[in-house]
Amino acid sequence: MRTVRFYFDPISPYAWLASQELHRLERAGFQLDCQPILFAALLNAQGQKGPAEIPAKRRYVFTDVWRLATQKGLTIEGPPSHPFNPLRALRLCQAVSDPRARQRLSVAILDAPWRLGLDLNDPNTLSRIATGCALDGPALLALTDTPQVKAQLLEATQQAINQGVFGVPSFVVNDQLYWGADRIDSLIWESQYGFIDEKRLERMLARPASAQRQPG
Amino acid sequence: MRTVRFYFDPISPYAWLASQELHRLERAGFQLDCQPILFAALLNAQGQKGPAEIPAKRRYVFTDVWRLATQKGLTIEGPPSHPFNPLRALRLCQAVSDPRARQRLSVAILDAPWRLGLDLNDPNTLSRIATGCALDGPALLALTDTPQVKAQLLEATQQAINQGVFGVPSFVVNDQLYWGADRIDSLIWESQYGFIDEKRLERMLARPASAQRQPG
Repeated sequence: MRTVRFYFDPISPYAWLASQELHRLERAGFQLDCQPILFAALLNAQGQKGPAEIPAKRRYVFTDVWRLATQKGLTIEGPPSHPFNPLRALRLCQAVSDPRARQRLSVAILDAPWRLGLDLNDPNTLSRIATGCALDGPALLALTDTPQVKAQLLEATQQAINQGVFGVPSFVVNDQLYWGADRIDSLIWESQYGFIDEKRLERMLARPASAQRQPG
Repeated sequence: MRTVRFYFDPISPYAWLASQELHRLERAGFQLDCQPILFAALLNAQGQKGPAEIPAKRRYVFTDVWRLATQKGLTIEGPPSHPFNPLRALRLCQAVSDPRARQRLSVAILDAPWRLGLDLNDPNTLSRIATGCALDGPALLALTDTPQVKAQLLEATQQAINQGVFGVPSFVVNDQLYWGADRIDSLIWESQYGFIDEKRLERMLARPASAQRQPG
């Protein structure tokens, strides 16, 4: 069975939108591997600003997400603060090793701020979300303070960076990267109708630049 | 008749993809107003890197565009160099004042590098493209060196920035911004089924941050 890795951080409303369509990947025959990663570390690796750090883009992103949620019939509320610190929520997901249980918790963690308006800064909320997924909330919460879980999250984030991941949500299947909730279509399309002409693509990628932007 | 403004720069392959779907907007009852703008100036205004300036993102963007073109049945070749300097091509489009003639030329200018592999750095190529659109190529090319056309392009770019435009392609209709070739769906959907709950969106936008990224 083919596996697709789903990279997410609950800081991203697009990761939430993607989590609402994971069943489409399952129906297409994919097994899911949900991997929390720290989006801020991806931005640091690129020296890039996040969408919420550019005022015009922040306004646009929230508007866009609101539109997409409305089109899909999803209720959206959004978190009480944004950006928030997602570290403990990410570690909570990382602390679950069973793939199906981790998927259940990951979807719930993404749903909590964006659909329900819950505050992922609050440890009690995290524990309750885990308990609601038929997991041992207090025990998982305790694990988020262990060096092992902290290290696993950092390693997974670094591995994602090494694979070329630069944003969330991202999907990786057979070394192929798909970025964005709206690229699940591309992933399923390619799995059914075959992949692109890699040789011609590589030829395009190998061509030189003939201009450099003068940062002004 | 409702007008939608299409902001583009041929540096962006997504602007090319968008130009291949303008007929969908026309079918939905929109009149088109094609406005060239300088993408590099948007990046400078935000202090942001462009996709081609982040190696992992450059590779991804070209791969993504190749996939989307393949799915849509479009032939893609890509320009002989990238990034290239789009200034003269932008000015060529700016120099055409009739809206329908400008649309014809804009679509051809976007098609030239991405579908046909032509070099927009070459003035002769620009002139030939314009002539192929039943316009006076040499006369338009001469206009690209006039202070008036240069100033009009800069003004239009600044106006776009003032409207909250931060990327290309962008569409603006009734002060509503849509960014990306894949948001034509959102634009048409909203024009047919009504707009989002702006009050609840504004409430979400007004909430504070509770974390700041430490650029590392």
